[in-house]
Amino acid sequence: MFKVEEASTQEKSGIKFNVTERDEYVIIEFELDKPLTPEELRGIKPPSTPIGKGVVLSGRAPIWLYAYLIHHYHPTTFIAVYDPRIGAIVTESHTPKYRVGDILKL
Amino acid sequence: MFKVEEASTQEKSGIKFNVTERDEYVIIEFELDKPLTPEELRGIKPPSTPIGKGVVLSGRAPIWLYAYLIHHYHPTTFIAVYDPRIGAIVTESHTPKYRVGDILKL
Repeated sequence: MFKVEEASTQEKSGIKFNVTERDEYVIIEFELDKPLTPEELRGIKPPSTPIGKGVVLSGRAPIWLYAYLIHHYHPTTFIAVYDPRIGAIVTESHTPKYRVGDILKL
Repeated sequence: MFKVEEASTQEKSGIKFNVTERDEYVIIEFELDKPLTPEELRGIKPPSTPIGKGVVLSGRAPIWLYAYLIHHYHPTTFIAVYDPRIGAIVTESHTPKYRVGDILKL
C-alpha cells in the first residue's frame, strides 16, 4: 500500500515495521508473522521518527500493541491511526495544524 | 461482565461509559450505540478516575477511539487494555508494581 523506505523484522516477536516518510509525518506500518504474546511487548523496539513530524500507525494487530505504540510515540507532533474504511484519524496532536478527529488521506 | 458502579451515555456520540472501581485500578468499559465518526472524538468526555489508580480499558470500538482514550489516560498510574482471549494487558506504567506485558485477571 505504501512505498517502503525502511523495513526491519524483530526476530523474537516476529514484528516487522515499515517506515515511509512524508513531509509532515511518517507512516509506520507493522505486520506480525505470528500472534504476539503480551510479554513480547517488552522487547519491541519501535522505529525512531524525525523530530517535528507526526506518526501514522497502520497494521492488523491487537489493540494492546497499538496502545503500547501510542504511548511510545506520545512525544511526536501528532498521532493518527489508519482505519481502512476511513483514512488516518488524528487521535492526539501537539500542533494546531492537526486536530483530533481530522482525517488524513494517505 | 463487570459490576457497574457508574454509567453515563453521551448523547451526540452515542458512547456509554461504565466505570467499576477496584483497589488499584478502575475498569472503564465503553459501548457504542452507533458507529462513531472521527469528528465525534472531539466531544467525548471520558470519565475521571481516582488519583493513584490505573485504568483498564474494555470495549468493542475502533482502534482510533482506543488511541484517543489511551492519550487521555496517560497521566494515570498505568493503562491496561482488555483482550477477551487473554485478560487485561498492561501497555504503559508509571509504577514498578505493574510492568508492560503483565496480564491482569479481572
